[in-house]
This record gives sequence, C-alpha cells and structure tokens, in this order.
Amino acid sequence: MALKNTQVLLAARPQGWVTESDFRIVETDIPSPNDGEILVKNTWLSLDPYMRGRMSDRKSYAKPVDVGAVMIGGTVGEVIESKNPAFAKGDLVVGTLGWQEYAVTDGRAVRKVDPSLPHSVYLGTVGMPGVTAWLGLIDFGTPKAGETVVVSAASGAVGSVVGQLAKSRGCRAVGIAGGAEKCAYVTRELGFDACVDYKDPSFEKALAEATPNGVDVYFENVGGPVLDAVLPRLNAFARIPLCGLIADYNAIEPYAVKHFGALLTNRVRLQGFIVSEHLDRWPTALAELSQLVREGKLVYRETVAHGLREAPRAFIGLLKGQNLGKQVVKLA
Amino acid sequence: MALKNTQVLLAARPQGWVTESDFRIVETDIPSPNDGEILVKNTWLSLDPYMRGRMSDRKSYAKPVDVGAVMIGGTVGEVIESKNPAFAKGDLVVGTLGWQEYAVTDGRAVRKVDPSLPHSVYLGTVGMPGVTAWLGLIDFGTPKAGETVVVSAASGAVGSVVGQLAKSRGCRAVGIAGGAEKCAYVTRELGFDACVDYKDPSFEKALAEATPNGVDVYFENVGGPVLDAVLPRLNAFARIPLCGLIADYNAIEPYAVKHFGALLTNRVRLQGFIVSEHLDRWPTALAELSQLVREGKLVYRETVAHGLREAPRAFIGLLKGQNLGKQVVKLA
Repeated sequence: MALKNTQVLLAARPQGWVTESDFRIVETDIPSPNDGEILVKNTWLSLDPYMRGRMSDRKSYAKPVDVGAVMIGGTVGEVIESKNPAFAKGDLVVGTLGWQEYAVTDGRAVRKVDPSLPHSVYLGTVGMPGVTAWLGLIDFGTPKAGETVVVSAASGAVGSVVGQLAKSRGCRAVGIAGGAEKCAYVTRELGFDACVDYKDPSFEKALAEATPNGVDVYFENVGGPVLDAVLPRLNAFARIPLCGLIADYNAIEPYAVKHFGALLTNRVRLQGFIVSEHLDRWPTALAELSQLVREGKLVYRETVAHGLREAPRAFIGLLKGQNLGKQVVKLA
Repeated sequence: MALKNTQVLLAARPQGWVTESDFRIVETDIPSPNDGEILVKNTWLSLDPYMRGRMSDRKSYAKPVDVGAVMIGGTVGEVIESKNPAFAKGDLVVGTLGWQEYAVTDGRAVRKVDPSLPHSVYLGTVGMPGVTAWLGLIDFGTPKAGETVVVSAASGAVGSVVGQLAKSRGCRAVGIAGGAEKCAYVTRELGFDACVDYKDPSFEKALAEATPNGVDVYFENVGGPVLDAVLPRLNAFARIPLCGLIADYNAIEPYAVKHFGALLTNRVRLQGFIVSEHLDRWPTALAELSQLVREGKLVYRETVAHGLREAPRAFIGLLKGQNLGKQVVKLA
C-alpha cells in the first residue's frame, strides 16, 4: 500500500525547557508483521509528564529514549493485521507503541480492552494515569475516612482521579492547581471539597484555610514551592506518595526543599514509586476504575490535539500546564 | 536531712546555638514520696540531641519544656525510699527523671534494670539510643545481607549501634563522622567497613569510594549537606529511617535539600520516627542489645562529664560534636 507511517523521533536532548526542535517528524514504510506478530494502527496517543525524563540522560528509573529513536508513549489502536492467534483483526488494544501511526508488536506489550467505553479513557482514567492515582493513594497513601487528602496537579490525569478516589473513601479532598479555571473544574466537575490556586499570591493562606484539620495524605506530582507550602501543613503520621516532581523536570538545577524537617517532626512516611513496577496491582485498580467510570462516579476531561504532527506542541503545552485533564492526541 | 536537690532549669529559649545562660542551676529541698511513690537518687544523666528540640517552641512532635521547669532527660538511679510495693530500697531504675539529683515518681515512668551491666549503658547502647538504632534500622531500614548501610553521626550513641547491628545482619556498614579521630574509632573499635569524614574537602569522593555498590539504607541523624551528599548515592528501592536532623537544630533557617528528587527517581521509602512512639518494640530490641553487650559483640564508648553543674557545658559540646560515643553525666 502507498500509505506511510508518520513517526516522531527524539532529535536532541533538551536543555531546560523542551522545544519543538528537540523532535523530528519522519515518514517511513509501514512495517509488516511476522509470525506471532500483529500490526496495529494507533488511533490515540497519550502525552504524559514522565516522557520529559525519558528525553534526558540524567540518572533516572528508566533508560532514556535514544536520540534518533521513536519517542516512547502509550497508545490505543486497532489490530489491522494479525499473525498471532491471540488477536483478531479489529481488536482494540492498549500498549506503549510510541509516537507513531503504525507499529508491529508480538502482542506481549499490549492488552485487549472493551471497546464499549470511550477508547481514549484507556490512556487516562482507566489506564496508566488512573492506576498511578489508585496505587499511590490506596497502597502508599492509605487514606482513612475523615482524613484530609491533598493532591497537586489536581486537574491533571492523575490528580483528578486521586481526589475522586479520596472522596470515595470518605476523605476530604483538596486540590492544588494553577489558575481559577482549573480550580473551578476541580471543585465543580470533579467534586473536590476545595481547590487552591498555587499561582495566587495568597496561596499559602488559602491552603491553610482549605485544610483546617491539617494534611494526612499529600499525593505529590509537582514538587518545588508547592511542596514547601504543603510540608508545614502535615499532620503527625502523614503519608506522602511521591509520584512526580514536574516542577523540576525542566529545571537545570532542582528546587531545594526548605521544610524537609517536617518529615521528621511529623513522623511522615514518604514513598517514591512508579506504577510500572507494581503490575500485580493493575487488575484490582483497573477493575475499580472502569466500574466507577461506567457508573458515572469517576469523571474526567481531556484536552485533545489532532494529528501526530501536533504532538510536540501539545507535549510542551502539557509541561507548561496548558492542558485541562488528560492530554491525548487523536491520530488521523 | 540537710542535703539539697541540685536541679538544672530551662532559663530561656535559645535563638540559634544554645548557650550556658539558657540554663539556670538551683538548689531545692529534696521531695518526699507519698503512698505509691518512690524517691530516686539519680546517679547518671543522659544528654541527647533531642533535648535541643524541647528547649524550643518551634512546632515539633513533643511539647517543649516550660521556661523555668527542670530540663527533661533520661536517668539511671537508685531507689532510696519506697512507698510503692513494686520497688525496694536499692533497686536500680531507668527513667526520664530530668536534670536533677533527686526525684519522686509513682514508678510508672521507670523500669528496674539488671545492675550487673555497667549502669550507664542503660542510657546508651541498652537504652533509648540503642533502641532508636535498632528500631530505625531493623523495622524501617529492613536491611538485607549484602546491602550497604550508611549512617551519619556514626560515632554517636545511636550511629555506633546502627553500624554494628548492620554488620550483624551481614551488611556493609559505612559511617559518616566528623574528623579523623572519630572515623578511626568507628572503623577500628566499632568494626564498620569504612567511615568517611564529612569535614574533609574530598568528602563526596570518599563517600563514593566507600559505597562502590551504592547505598541501600541511609540511617539519617544529621541532615544538611551530609544528606545532600548521600542522596545521589541511593540505590533503587533504598530506605531512609529519618531519626534526626541535628544540623538544623541550632539553625535559624533550616537547610534546603537539593537532591530531594533522588527520593522519586530511586523509589525511596523514607520514614520519620521517634522511638517513644513504638514502645511495643522495646522489649525485643532491649533483649537483643543487652545480649550483644554481654557477649562483647556490641561495643561502645562514653564521654563522661562529672557533676550536674557540668551538664549545660557538656550538652553544648554534644551539639557541636565534641563528644565521642554516648555523652553522659556522672552525678555526684
């Protein structure tokens, strides 16, 4: 066939903020599956903050993307040719097939999903970000009814689920987000008890007012000055699931944390984690998340970019907080 | 009797470094026990870094000592009069009777100990600091044979026990201490595999050389730049029992931690703790510690000040790291 496979490659390792010139868009031949393999046409691409780490060769928990290689990324797609008996043409599959329109895989890295839910949900609320929220809050945050749960980046793909799950456990859910629009979304649509705007000059005062009984669980996605504002609000025996530090990802020098001592005085348990190292918990998490979505008890919004060529710009917007809810790319 | 009770009171809340004028020494009448009470003549007083926190009214895990009240402190003493059937004249008791020569107590806050060990050991290796080391390392550090355990303030009452317990679990034990003399003590007398001098200009390089396989457990007593030197050495899934941050205790502004991000990239579990909140673990800890001391497998040194009037000066020396091993005061 005359069709080509559009791909986005990592062109250069960014210094500080990512720019569009750090990516290169190419067209290659569509690969053919061998025995045991399938050819997938990707229909949705996920954009996530962790990708910033993979662009860098700073020491991290995962190997970086090689310069010249296809950018890593979660995808939803349709099987268009199968030489693997476990898959049939037309199956809907979720995997990590990267920033490209077509990919061949042996099937071990993808799983079939129910096409009756909106397909892009498998990249967000019923996918990696949703499981991240579930695992961090339930397993590492161990929230108890009546406690106060605070989450940063509350309007994002992870944070939005954290707060709704906290409410489902009988907790007070307080979000931190950037700007009045995002805060209104967090309280009015997502049902958090409060949301505080970190860009507002009275942020610290507003945070104190929103957490009159202190903070028992702080689900951390951002770090930086937001972290330093929350640390003094922690209660004794508070828990911090440490999921992300997006404030540092584009910084040349990381932010220095002033109130580290609060971890001692409050006997805090902090746990850094990445969701891909806890695969045993995914089935339990996904079962609850998909059920809640079906019942309308777990809501979400998406910011959709159209076409793979828009992915670099949308990713930069994500890092700058320009999205509302889960950032995805609808492929042509 | 004509004897008087010498007491050391908190005279003022220190700003920055503690000075002798923050204390006031007084002589009062020796109290008499009522029914159910005992009168104890203290023979040893413990000096510990946590006392600095109790002198301040900065938010912490414990109420501060009131200005004008007797300074808090662990003691070993002899029962000299008993109106409580659980105690007899001559019993050796350990408790927290404060910076004074005599005290009356109802007996709930003291426990009888075996007089066949050197009495002051109950303030150190077989007392609160020893249990602190045991609890932090065993319960929160969860060391496995072959792993590398690093402990700061390694020549101190807690650190010295941490390293020896780590060796007993088959770990590589690496100390951090201030000065060549302390480091020599840590390796030669305490049997650590290595000890690094944080005052040496090549500290970071020496730390890297002493931890060729990275750091799996970091038992933290000091904080400050030492913490920032260790964080980049952490391995994936490292644990940090957070026991103390003595570098901050006399600072007006706490030290800002640069490498906080290492907690995320290495999926670290950090647990702040204070030993008095884990009383259920004390019997197990004390049983092992006293057995190891009897067998000569757990060694220690003490720095002894003579007479209660020397306690303020000795305490200031402790905060400046002038002691070697456990700092105690032998009462007259």
